[in-house]
Amino acid sequence: MSAIEFPAELTARFSDPSALIPAIAQDATTGEVLMLAYMNHAALTQTLTTKAATYWSRSRNELWVKGATSGHTQKVISVSLDCDSDAILIKVEQVGAACHTGDRTCFHNELISE
Amino acid sequence: MSAIEFPAELTARFSDPSALIPAIAQDATTGEVLMLAYMNHAALTQTLTTKAATYWSRSRNELWVKGATSGHTQKVISVSLDCDSDAILIKVEQVGAACHTGDRTCFHNELISE
Repeated sequence: MSAIEFPAELTARFSDPSALIPAIAQDATTGEVLMLAYMNHAALTQTLTTKAATYWSRSRNELWVKGATSGHTQKVISVSLDCDSDAILIKVEQVGAACHTGDRTCFHNELISE
Repeated sequence: MSAIEFPAELTARFSDPSALIPAIAQDATTGEVLMLAYMNHAALTQTLTTKAATYWSRSRNELWVKGATSGHTQKVISVSLDCDSDAILIKVEQVGAACHTGDRTCFHNELISE
């Protein structure tokens, strides 16, 4: 596969090797927002080439293939950047639970709702 | 209105006055992810009390009531924290366009899709 071309603004951000960009994972079928994690250049490239959602673990300081140990993988359906290339939205097919608690989504602590 | 109680983990994060937490805005009706911005303690508190989505502008270094100048406000329907209180999901009724480009969503730059 040929190298993936990033928009110039994203390439500029990634010129700092420590740069991390927040990535939102959304269920491609239900639209549910599942989690927010971070990607560096390597994680985004691996996500795009393997179609297996891959983040940068800030706690372990290493690439983190979502579900590699739990089996709760995320198959990538689409990847979009926002208008100023500082956030990523990936739509995924989530196997099992996105959250380490066993919940389908990490956003299960509601502060207010109508 | 009485003070809003935050989970201890969030209160601890906000004990650093410069702490910013990413906040995802999602259309409450369609499920479309609209934008990602940041909140500090004041922005989250104002969002919860006024139900008008309020962020911290990192470029202007000030509270940013979404739509205050454009009219493209976000009426807050629900606010949820993720499992470790380091990301926020707000579901909103978006008036007009979320993006400054005039697009409904900021995530209009697709890198790949099936």
